[in-house]
Amino acid sequence: MDFSFPAFDETAAARAAQRQTQLTKPLGALGRLERLVVHLAGAQARPIPSSRPAACLLFASDHPVVRHGVSAYPREVTAAMVSNFVAGGAAASVLCAHLDVPLQVVDVGVATPYDAPVLRAGAAAMPVGDLRVEDAMPAETFASAWATGREVVAALDASTRVVVLGEMGIGNTTPASALTAALLGLAPELAVGTGTGVDAEGRARKVAVVHDALTRVADERAPLELLRRLGGRELVAIAGAAAEAASRRIVVLVDGFIVSAALLALARHTPGVLPFLVPAHRSREPAHRAVLEALFAGEGLRGEPLLDLDLALGEGSGALAALPLVDLAVATHARMATFESAGVPDRSDAPWRPEVSPRSAAVAPRSSS
Amino acid sequence: MDFSFPAFDETAAARAAQRQTQLTKPLGALGRLERLVVHLAGAQARPIPSSRPAACLLFASDHPVVRHGVSAYPREVTAAMVSNFVAGGAAASVLCAHLDVPLQVVDVGVATPYDAPVLRAGAAAMPVGDLRVEDAMPAETFASAWATGREVVAALDASTRVVVLGEMGIGNTTPASALTAALLGLAPELAVGTGTGVDAEGRARKVAVVHDALTRVADERAPLELLRRLGGRELVAIAGAAAEAASRRIVVLVDGFIVSAALLALARHTPGVLPFLVPAHRSREPAHRAVLEALFAGEGLRGEPLLDLDLALGEGSGALAALPLVDLAVATHARMATFESAGVPDRSDAPWRPEVSPRSAAVAPRSSS
Repeated sequence: MDFSFPAFDETAAARAAQRQTQLTKPLGALGRLERLVVHLAGAQARPIPSSRPAACLLFASDHPVVRHGVSAYPREVTAAMVSNFVAGGAAASVLCAHLDVPLQVVDVGVATPYDAPVLRAGAAAMPVGDLRVEDAMPAETFASAWATGREVVAALDASTRVVVLGEMGIGNTTPASALTAALLGLAPELAVGTGTGVDAEGRARKVAVVHDALTRVADERAPLELLRRLGGRELVAIAGAAAEAASRRIVVLVDGFIVSAALLALARHTPGVLPFLVPAHRSREPAHRAVLEALFAGEGLRGEPLLDLDLALGEGSGALAALPLVDLAVATHARMATFESAGVPDRSDAPWRPEVSPRSAAVAPRSSS
Repeated sequence: MDFSFPAFDETAAARAAQRQTQLTKPLGALGRLERLVVHLAGAQARPIPSSRPAACLLFASDHPVVRHGVSAYPREVTAAMVSNFVAGGAAASVLCAHLDVPLQVVDVGVATPYDAPVLRAGAAAMPVGDLRVEDAMPAETFASAWATGREVVAALDASTRVVVLGEMGIGNTTPASALTAALLGLAPELAVGTGTGVDAEGRARKVAVVHDALTRVADERAPLELLRRLGGRELVAIAGAAAEAASRRIVVLVDGFIVSAALLALARHTPGVLPFLVPAHRSREPAHRAVLEALFAGEGLRGEPLLDLDLALGEGSGALAALPLVDLAVATHARMATFESAGVPDRSDAPWRPEVSPRSAAVAPRSSS
């Protein structure tokens, strides 16, 4: 897994920042949308960056670890949701349709048969393990899922500028929690949330599973090995997809806890991917905050997620919800008038001086027209 | 100013909440977007509420108080921006065009001549005052600006479901700060921010102006009288527009500090308007937090603004930036499949039971397909 990424283009970012000073608004008045567009300029190496074409790739997989009762839903839901994505009834389907973003579902490990025309990748038929007691997958499965992630990004429209990577997999907050705990040195209690809504007993089972998994991999330090040994095939595919996207200067709008955990493993292995990641939202899952803080440490305010809406769905839904903000940041940057072009007076740098007799001039009500 | 508003429709809200339990996602997984759509259902009295048609009304006015050097920009900018709105070069213009929202500019008091086809209301030629030393406007001007706000909302497409009320007026964070301080009992230092970017001296002048204004109206308690005596014509028109919108069950997506201050005066006068207000964003202006907390006190989590992006622009820009979230909340609610329609298994309420021999079953790597 040796790879490198293009560099953040400081010149393009500086040109975008300069352009922002000329637009007809007080400097900085669009706040984090200005920071966002300047960052996109550097990532895309374009002083006027784009948010479209955008694409959404949803990677679906099941997890042997569900046998320990770590999810509120039965495993069959993964397959049923694959069909639901294709039929247009899932949240991600509705969001993609509304936002005019093509949605592609990639099956990297769905356990239950289903009848829907989605890409079924080779990894779906390869060995996996129960992360509580054994590695989540052997190297061959990892390599296959990773390659699938890369391939589906490579197959996108060549002009694609932004990609949303999402996941569907009953039970997959457990591998995400185990991976997070291992990468950040967190206690299982701090890395485990309620996922899709397990009760207290279910959460306790998740904590126990993560505890056992951490004991099993206690000597492991390599981030991508932790991803292989604790993760799931959709997490691996997402990491591979992000690596491919970054290599093409396609910006990844980072969804919730599971996607972020996978990308943290990638970024710990190759920090050069970071400029191509934009945090979309902070989810309800309690450890997501720690993952985002670790992932974007040193990135300053641009590392703050755009949304904080108590979402806990996955499917790329939080990243899709943030996409309109990226669209609007890009649109204002590209299409607003400049002070010069619009004939709007800019602020004066001359110090303010009182009128000769401001008090007397002010006493009588005056018409402003 | 006696008026009443329709009641929040608890039945429609309950039906929307019930529908949310049936959609193919974990209950509550769309977080605040679910709360939002349930609230919209009650406000609109429709179990499946709408975000469109939406409209944006921008009220523009100048302020005699600028003579005290309270803004970083010259007064002529207000008129220049009116032309810029119409020409399509302002942030609000680009946002509206991108979001397919009709933008109407209403001049209720622009002091500098301009050449642009906007509605110039009667209040624009009526007396106003420097709020530091006299009432910001007499009752006749107030009544005219208020009526204009009502009229432009009444003239919207009858099917309009959501309206963004915005403002443009060099100097108008000063009346908003004075009004906020008076309504909330805040010290001027806590109610005054840097607006469009005044320096420390300019901010000190704003504090002094607000201090003098508060002294002048120290005995006034009536919220709409405070609005008249401290506000500006665009603030008054916005309050009138919101009152008219609420009377028609049109939801107001509440923009930044200035709009919020005007609506706080309205809500203090007639709390029945509250169900029709949705907080769009929290701006950079420091007192906006206090205004939002006061405005939505008792409204619980639905009173939290959707966005917090360090915006400080006005023009309705923060509300426009939040409109896509309202669109997406409404779209998922209306168009997602139900568990039943999609054939997706819902969560089991049966307690989880371990497999007979989970440990041995888990040891061998297994294919999930």
